[in-house]
Amino acid sequence: MVEYQKILDKIYSDLKKTKDHGEVAAYIPELKNVDPDKFGMYLNRLHGDNFYVGDWNESFSIQSISKVFTLGKAMSLIGNDVWKRVDVEPSGNPFNYLALLEQEEGIPRNPLINSGAIVMADILVSELDDPKKDFLQFVRNIANDESIIYNEKVAISEAKTGFTNYAIANLLKSFDNLHNDVETVMDFYFHQCSLEMTCEQLSNSFYLFANRGKCQRNCEYLTLNQIKRINAILLTCGFYDEAGEFAFEVGLPGKSGVGGGIVALLPNEFTLTCWSPGLNPKGNSYLGMKALEAFTTATNLSIF
Amino acid sequence: MVEYQKILDKIYSDLKKTKDHGEVAAYIPELKNVDPDKFGMYLNRLHGDNFYVGDWNESFSIQSISKVFTLGKAMSLIGNDVWKRVDVEPSGNPFNYLALLEQEEGIPRNPLINSGAIVMADILVSELDDPKKDFLQFVRNIANDESIIYNEKVAISEAKTGFTNYAIANLLKSFDNLHNDVETVMDFYFHQCSLEMTCEQLSNSFYLFANRGKCQRNCEYLTLNQIKRINAILLTCGFYDEAGEFAFEVGLPGKSGVGGGIVALLPNEFTLTCWSPGLNPKGNSYLGMKALEAFTTATNLSIF
Amino acid sequence: MVEYQKILDKIYSDLKKTKDHGEVAAYIPELKNVDPDKFGMYLNRLHGDNFYVGDWNESFSIQSISKVFTLGKAMSLIGNDVWKRVDVEPSGNPFNYLALLEQEEGIPRNPLINSGAIVMADILVSELDDPKKDFLQFVRNIANDESIIYNEKVAISEAKTGFTNYAIANLLKSFDNLHNDVETVMDFYFHQCSLEMTCEQLSNSFYLFANRGKCQRNCEYLTLNQIKRINAILLTCGFYDEAGEFAFEVGLPGKSGVGGGIVALLPNEFTLTCWSPGLNPKGNSYLGMKALEAFTTATNLSIF
Amino acid sequence: MVEYQKILDKIYSDLKKTKDHGEVAAYIPELKNVDPDKFGMYLNRLHGDNFYVGDWNESFSIQSISKVFTLGKAMSLIGNDVWKRVDVEPSGNPFNYLALLEQEEGIPRNPLINSGAIVMADILVSELDDPKKDFLQFVRNIANDESIIYNEKVAISEAKTGFTNYAIANLLKSFDNLHNDVETVMDFYFHQCSLEMTCEQLSNSFYLFANRGKCQRNCEYLTLNQIKRINAILLTCGFYDEAGEFAFEVGLPGKSGVGGGIVALLPNEFTLTCWSPGLNPKGNSYLGMKALEAFTTATNLSIF
Repeated sequence: MVEYQKILDKIYSDLKKTKDHGEVAAYIPELKNVDPDKFGMYLNRLHGDNFYVGDWNESFSIQSISKVFTLGKAMSLIGNDVWKRVDVEPSGNPFNYLALLEQEEGIPRNPLINSGAIVMADILVSELDDPKKDFLQFVRNIANDESIIYNEKVAISEAKTGFTNYAIANLLKSFDNLHNDVETVMDFYFHQCSLEMTCEQLSNSFYLFANRGKCQRNCEYLTLNQIKRINAILLTCGFYDEAGEFAFEVGLPGKSGVGGGIVALLPNEFTLTCWSPGLNPKGNSYLGMKALEAFTTATNLSIF
Repeated sequence: MVEYQKILDKIYSDLKKTKDHGEVAAYIPELKNVDPDKFGMYLNRLHGDNFYVGDWNESFSIQSISKVFTLGKAMSLIGNDVWKRVDVEPSGNPFNYLALLEQEEGIPRNPLINSGAIVMADILVSELDDPKKDFLQFVRNIANDESIIYNEKVAISEAKTGFTNYAIANLLKSFDNLHNDVETVMDFYFHQCSLEMTCEQLSNSFYLFANRGKCQRNCEYLTLNQIKRINAILLTCGFYDEAGEFAFEVGLPGKSGVGGGIVALLPNEFTLTCWSPGLNPKGNSYLGMKALEAFTTATNLSIF
Repeated sequence: MVEYQKILDKIYSDLKKTKDHGEVAAYIPELKNVDPDKFGMYLNRLHGDNFYVGDWNESFSIQSISKVFTLGKAMSLIGNDVWKRVDVEPSGNPFNYLALLEQEEGIPRNPLINSGAIVMADILVSELDDPKKDFLQFVRNIANDESIIYNEKVAISEAKTGFTNYAIANLLKSFDNLHNDVETVMDFYFHQCSLEMTCEQLSNSFYLFANRGKCQRNCEYLTLNQIKRINAILLTCGFYDEAGEFAFEVGLPGKSGVGGGIVALLPNEFTLTCWSPGLNPKGNSYLGMKALEAFTTATNLSIF
Repeated sequence: MVEYQKILDKIYSDLKKTKDHGEVAAYIPELKNVDPDKFGMYLNRLHGDNFYVGDWNESFSIQSISKVFTLGKAMSLIGNDVWKRVDVEPSGNPFNYLALLEQEEGIPRNPLINSGAIVMADILVSELDDPKKDFLQFVRNIANDESIIYNEKVAISEAKTGFTNYAIANLLKSFDNLHNDVETVMDFYFHQCSLEMTCEQLSNSFYLFANRGKCQRNCEYLTLNQIKRINAILLTCGFYDEAGEFAFEVGLPGKSGVGGGIVALLPNEFTLTCWSPGLNPKGNSYLGMKALEAFTTATNLSIF
């Protein structure tokens, strides 16, 4: 029998000793001021007990991890029509690369890079009655936790400095792949990125993707086919320019955010969230990546 | 002695016979509704009589030709500091290519592509007391004609559909190469593009660039060194992706606009404006390019 | 219990009815002359009986599928030093894109695109005593079949027309990432691509990758860690520009070749080879892709 | 009256004082071993005396300057058919960029980048009876000097290390824009680059391009129209990624080589060669560029 608590404890103590924690994202004050020594993990097992360590119960800015939620919600609303507006190929480029979007005439490479996520936001703005409120409720439902909130300060800060994202949205609009006005979509987008969640809440919210489309209290669902496709996209596109590296070293579908969070999952087995605010040069959590490698090495669990 | 009137008349009658006039720009109604059969030329000679033919006295939207005026004004205001924010190399790419701007980290290739012209607009917004008014007065001065005006309808139409330009401005801002806010700069930019001038007015306004920096009534000036550099940029960058072709076929510095105007000049000799609204696939006036080729072939005048 | 034979039979009869079989590769006569109506499948299950249908016992040119064998052999010879010379990221571009190789200064994106495979070939030329002979023996060992041979005619044809590959090899050499001379490496490379195998032989040879690194007769092996990494690369990079699509639609690690073969595998469960010579526009077997989609849909087997 | 000797002497003494002479090309021993302190200039005036200074009478490797001769010869042989195989647009990229060639499907941007020059070499190999011998005679004719020779050692050295050029030639071949075999064309190309000439010989050989197509002894000629076009290409494409900068700072058509030579010309007025082996980061002679800027500033001579 695998001793999960021992494994988490060892990862925690090993990583706590390392000197290099990466660089905390500094482009907005709210992210910059996070304590770089924070580190937490939460393992949610589908067929057994859960395990956790460190700062697993502290909220952080989930940022790009929210792109998985908007993708899931968009698929539940309009099904395969999603794929008329976004592709499913890895981008092979840093996360803000406009060149590719221009070259491919406004069809983002996949829904997990910024351009693709902005298209998903546009879909939700079109489809939901009260987009920000309804989307927040969706996240609360799948996490089974009504306390999850947007951080308005973060959303406002991002809007003030998010010129690259505004450039992307305008470029999408020039290719007629943004149907609402730029400001409305960006307001939604900056809010989704500002969601604050704990490691536990993230692991709970991803339960749906590990559990064949059914969330913990059966309140929301996606089809098995949709879930498989989301997991495939997570594996091939979840880590920007480092997606191949993550598949190679960790071997699990997952998604990272610039707030230092990473969620990964093994279908039918578990979801696992790590949080450590320092980032590697590719923009993924430095210790989070190491923690996930250590976990899959110790447990020999991977999809391959 | 060269019989200029005969040459212009022959070009006019030859081109009138051609079936293919290119495609009139259709992205805003104000441009789309222009009569595609319009054709005019105006030759302003520095040391002799002027000659003209066809619709030389009809106003049209000068669009990108205005970039030469903002470049000249920016150079007169801040001199070589202009070159800290924009390069002088041909772009080798279509006029709205964001890829290059991203790759070169926010330094536009030259001041005659959209990104470079938006940086020039930003400089004028920073340097002029009343940017739109003062710039209009500059153009009136060098053309020696107080009747030149912005077309507000055109400016508003462009603002409504100019998503690519907004994308460029935001991308420049993300690289810290736009110092004023996006809306203010774009408002100035869309106004400069909306300037309406006749062939005669354009030829008169470019007199400055052919006449070593002194305009017709000596009201404005640039140094000889600045003029030579502007002419060099016109030759290497004045026709988007077709600059080499124009240098090759025509052999004169010049600038085209999507309204169908082209101005070219031979230093110390003449300025020549053609106008025909239909465009070739590269976005330059279809008959205008042919008219200029015919003129330099007939007269054997070129800088080479 | 899953009725595999029924599933294969149904896929076979369904696909036989389709009009569009894609385009057979035509760049060398040996590939062009293959009967476009050929279709075969062979399922090798690790814990149960094997199943097959159609032309499963006919040899075809495995082409790029051989890149998996050279990768495996290179890893077994020099271990992680492989990753000093090639990356593990999806290429996000067609299979012969030199641009990316130039931009990334001679480090191929991954070992399954042509440039990466040429680096693997270079490693084998350096490390093996008699490269072509020893590599052929390796393939025979893992397939447990001494009858597998190179097709010399195919190898010679490819050498005569393989200018893009010569360009790649020379570009690698210019970046000092090819240690042997171009001709020797290309001779090896064109031979590996010329290997002829049946669906059964391919399924048998990939047993190793599904079976945690042990081949059917235990004659060759890779570590579990190496196998997982190879499978990860297969999933993220095995289908050129369509890798994401394959992960998305099929959800299995796999590799295709321009001869119309595709091998896929579910770790610890099975290997499955399809062969149909007609290709889709991305260069993967048209019916082979459809057959694999149908198989995973019918069986609900995938890594996600 | 302009005091040319005084101007050349002053440029010479000023530049001799500068510490930074750039970096001598080091990729082959024959170029690396050149004395970095060499500096020479030779001014050939069409309507007056010639002037010179420093090491004007010493031979050096003309390298890419030879591309102007092959272009001229190709145009004299097949006229406008040249433009079916090469474009006339600036490349906007470093001189060995394969990406652009791939993107534009084997049509080089212009005849002065390596890919375009290799196509010119291919034309001469097709059209000339004894390509290397006949081309050498052409150069001797236009320079009016039978002593000009290839440096076989340089040609052999370049062939041994010219992997990027071999990559380009193979890529051209893959797009069917190289009609002879790669080795034959590259042998010609490496020989043309190995030509050794003095400043005087280069200025004499470019007399043709300044003198409307007639060389000094009327032994060879091009049409006025062809000459104008060559000059236009020199201006827009003669200095790799620095063509715009050269047009901007110097304002003359010209061509540089990695051996440290630069030739420039003012139509109907003069040809001027500078030689200094140290290069700037863009691959053009560091002091040569400065010398030409100083000359045109002092004399106020430019095409603009």
